[in-house]
Amino acid sequence: MTTHPVLIGGEWTASTGTETFQASNPTTAEPLPDLFPVSPWGEIEQAIHAAAEAAKLMRGWPGARFAAFLEKYADRIDARSEELATTANLETALPKDGRLAGIELPRTTNQLRLAAAAAREGTWTTATIDTATNIRAMYGPIGPVVVFGPNNFPFAFNGISGGDFAAAIAAGNPVIAKGHSSHPNTTRIFAEEALQAALETDMPPALVQLIYRCDHADGAKLVSHPMMGATGYTGARSAGLYLKEAADKVGKPIYLELSSINPIFVLPGALEERCQDLAEEFAGSCLMGTGQFCTNPGVVVLPAGEAAEEFIAAVTEKFNSAPVGTLLGEGVQHSMASGIFALQSAGAHVIAGGESGGGSGYSHQNTLLKVDGAKFLADPEGLQTEAFGNCSLLVIAEDIDEMTAIADSLEGNLTGAIYSDTGGCDDDVYDQLAAAVRPHVGRLLNDKMPTGVAVSSAMNHGGPFPATGHPVFTAVGIPASIHRFSMLQCYDNIRPHRLPLALQDQHPGGGMWRLVDGTWSQADV
Amino acid sequence: MTTHPVLIGGEWTASTGTETFQASNPTTAEPLPDLFPVSPWGEIEQAIHAAAEAAKLMRGWPGARFAAFLEKYADRIDARSEELATTANLETALPKDGRLAGIELPRTTNQLRLAAAAAREGTWTTATIDTATNIRAMYGPIGPVVVFGPNNFPFAFNGISGGDFAAAIAAGNPVIAKGHSSHPNTTRIFAEEALQAALETDMPPALVQLIYRCDHADGAKLVSHPMMGATGYTGARSAGLYLKEAADKVGKPIYLELSSINPIFVLPGALEERCQDLAEEFAGSCLMGTGQFCTNPGVVVLPAGEAAEEFIAAVTEKFNSAPVGTLLGEGVQHSMASGIFALQSAGAHVIAGGESGGGSGYSHQNTLLKVDGAKFLADPEGLQTEAFGNCSLLVIAEDIDEMTAIADSLEGNLTGAIYSDTGGCDDDVYDQLAAAVRPHVGRLLNDKMPTGVAVSSAMNHGGPFPATGHPVFTAVGIPASIHRFSMLQCYDNIRPHRLPLALQDQHPGGGMWRLVDGTWSQADV
Repeated sequence: MTTHPVLIGGEWTASTGTETFQASNPTTAEPLPDLFPVSPWGEIEQAIHAAAEAAKLMRGWPGARFAAFLEKYADRIDARSEELATTANLETALPKDGRLAGIELPRTTNQLRLAAAAAREGTWTTATIDTATNIRAMYGPIGPVVVFGPNNFPFAFNGISGGDFAAAIAAGNPVIAKGHSSHPNTTRIFAEEALQAALETDMPPALVQLIYRCDHADGAKLVSHPMMGATGYTGARSAGLYLKEAADKVGKPIYLELSSINPIFVLPGALEERCQDLAEEFAGSCLMGTGQFCTNPGVVVLPAGEAAEEFIAAVTEKFNSAPVGTLLGEGVQHSMASGIFALQSAGAHVIAGGESGGGSGYSHQNTLLKVDGAKFLADPEGLQTEAFGNCSLLVIAEDIDEMTAIADSLEGNLTGAIYSDTGGCDDDVYDQLAAAVRPHVGRLLNDKMPTGVAVSSAMNHGGPFPATGHPVFTAVGIPASIHRFSMLQCYDNIRPHRLPLALQDQHPGGGMWRLVDGTWSQADV
Repeated sequence: MTTHPVLIGGEWTASTGTETFQASNPTTAEPLPDLFPVSPWGEIEQAIHAAAEAAKLMRGWPGARFAAFLEKYADRIDARSEELATTANLETALPKDGRLAGIELPRTTNQLRLAAAAAREGTWTTATIDTATNIRAMYGPIGPVVVFGPNNFPFAFNGISGGDFAAAIAAGNPVIAKGHSSHPNTTRIFAEEALQAALETDMPPALVQLIYRCDHADGAKLVSHPMMGATGYTGARSAGLYLKEAADKVGKPIYLELSSINPIFVLPGALEERCQDLAEEFAGSCLMGTGQFCTNPGVVVLPAGEAAEEFIAAVTEKFNSAPVGTLLGEGVQHSMASGIFALQSAGAHVIAGGESGGGSGYSHQNTLLKVDGAKFLADPEGLQTEAFGNCSLLVIAEDIDEMTAIADSLEGNLTGAIYSDTGGCDDDVYDQLAAAVRPHVGRLLNDKMPTGVAVSSAMNHGGPFPATGHPVFTAVGIPASIHRFSMLQCYDNIRPHRLPLALQDQHPGGGMWRLVDGTWSQADV
């Protein structure tokens, strides 16, 4: 069996490496037949140089050229959607029709097309003109970007088709994708289409490159290489922190999405009012996709009392009776088990599930743990251990003040949700709790589970560390997500004909908004 | 002699530390009489806790409250401007009337008032409303900010009155200022006025706190403390990188301005056209303020030839004949000498000055070094050593391609300038060179020296590492500078009355711009 080639400098090239790996079929826990290479440093360096050349060539190109590529690519993905869904299903065990073909693939092409529209229109650049001083500024491309995709969204967050990829290209950068080892064949199909789209739209062939795997040290060299602009990484915390250290040392921006337990706070009125509904809503959100969402609710904080007991009983019943899904891979199964063990060691008790297995292939019983508020506050760090998967921890607090103290003790999260009575009876305690939760989460929700991450201009899929690496930025939500792969470029006393079109007196067209002397405008200066 | 107290939690408190320090009068190189404390960790921790309490209290406060403080503070500074200028002159040797009272103080109060206007108006929050999904987002305060001020702008970049301070407050955060050890008495006066302004405008007394000095390890603990939001640092690269490592490790944003050599490229036509004028313009910019500006032109790249020789001769003459200014302190004198030594070790030759001394007190001769392009390209890192002060390196390149290669080899800088013929004869080479310079600098200039940093909405006082820590952000230029001390806060399905005013359907007033369904608007939703 031959080893799949890598995509470097516009060519599908046999890897110079000797190590290979295979993905697994999570449903059978058996390896899949295809062999993929582990790229050695020399090959990665080639990709960096090719990307740097491409970045140089594209300097000053209008957003419309990147838009044309993104749109062509989205069309080509659509045309191959059946094969993508079949392949991803085999590699991830995610449901082919409902999830992959039905939801994630349209989301992915939608993201690419929204990024295209943003690149063409140009408002994301925040073109700013100060006529009094003749100083002008805008965000421009930062240089070659490497995107490390995660295991849990083989399409929508894939290094070569997901949100980071779309944002990096929309900003005008070439991308080196590091595919996730759990779904290399899916990634390969994307790369084939991305290359074709690049060629058909007259982009440099090194606009998109792909390696499947490299060792950790080479990953660190990649993200900190002088020719690289920035990094997008979604994945495990330990590997992400290793890359972060390397990138930080040389001042290269690295945008990370690492971990989040997405706390849910249920206020007394809500619990009294609709305990059974809440149990159903929570169990549905937590077990959906076998719990493998970055925004999966991993902690629920409830006020002690009869209603809480009823909620616990209802959720326990649902966790025990719901089918056990297949996890994305062996690594997920292991880390879920070790997360649960860490929670137990910190004082939580298993009240449902708790054992590995129970489903086809890689799996772990739907697991519910419980701890009281005082114990949580005695070891907030240990009891905020993420157990990624179909698992959650119920925290039973004495009262609203203890709930608030728990909120104060939170690490950074992508989301935090507060459930309240549909009338106004929770309003006072809501204010107290929301003020405590707000600084710790990127997205605050009311009466809604966090597992849906709408592609919205106002979405924040970000949050304080360790949820991400920097709380100013979001990974979802165009145009804000594009800024991550840009740098601020100011023009001082530059002769008019040498200015980028977006900063010239004449409006560049296409409906772009510019901040002229403090006023947002779509007109000439 | 008693030791000056520190400002913690709204009280001027005797420091619990036993170590003290004194500033020097740079003109005499003699210590000034006042004793200032080195704050021990316990004291710093008190400040952190007080700041965290203040941040909690201020959650959700409208921008107008912070604006009122900033304006009151600016007024109080104006009222004490004579004393501030006298004190700062004694501590820094910067000219009292021309520079301190005449330029830097009005700039400082202007920055505070512009930040106030931005806080009140609110457009900086980028309030974004997506009506289709009912998701809304805005930038909000990040939490307590510590600002480390530099030595070279005792007013405009002071930790308790400068641009970072103004931006951090405008974003709604309390500030712990770490004054620079070279001008503690100046800083003390600011702190007195800041506290009074806070009390008069009903802000928490811990809105502004001040310590004068701490050891490096405690500085690292401060920037990485769980209760801290972010750090602003302007100063020496080594100390900045030490703090950055500590902050990065725990994912706390740290905004750094570290070093910049601000390259000037003179194109052949410009050199032919106005060689003498350029020599005068350059020498004036480089020696102004004894070269102690972050944007001081530290490298000039010229095409070899007769005109270059004439330029070199003219600049040499000016450097030899210009009076030698006083440096800010002994540290500056030492680091300038060691910077010059490093440049010589890397192959540059001194063609003017070169020795310490020559002026009153701390000083170093106006120094010019020269190296040819090939040698520069053989050791670009060594020849980009910053020699902060009245010093610059002339690089004589073979031709425009070598000038471009030099541009390609640049580290990150705050600025880069290109001088070109006033006609069009440099246009072709301009394009080539500008494309190479652009990715390495935050602000690109034409036919203008970089030493003026206008307070403009379009200013970028930032740039790629090692000029700063992150190329998306600017330290000067409101509203962009405010974003550094914020986090993105999204509201998903939040009941209307619980939303921040800026995100409610009804426009909050005051002319705020909001991004509603992709359109910038000042109207109700």
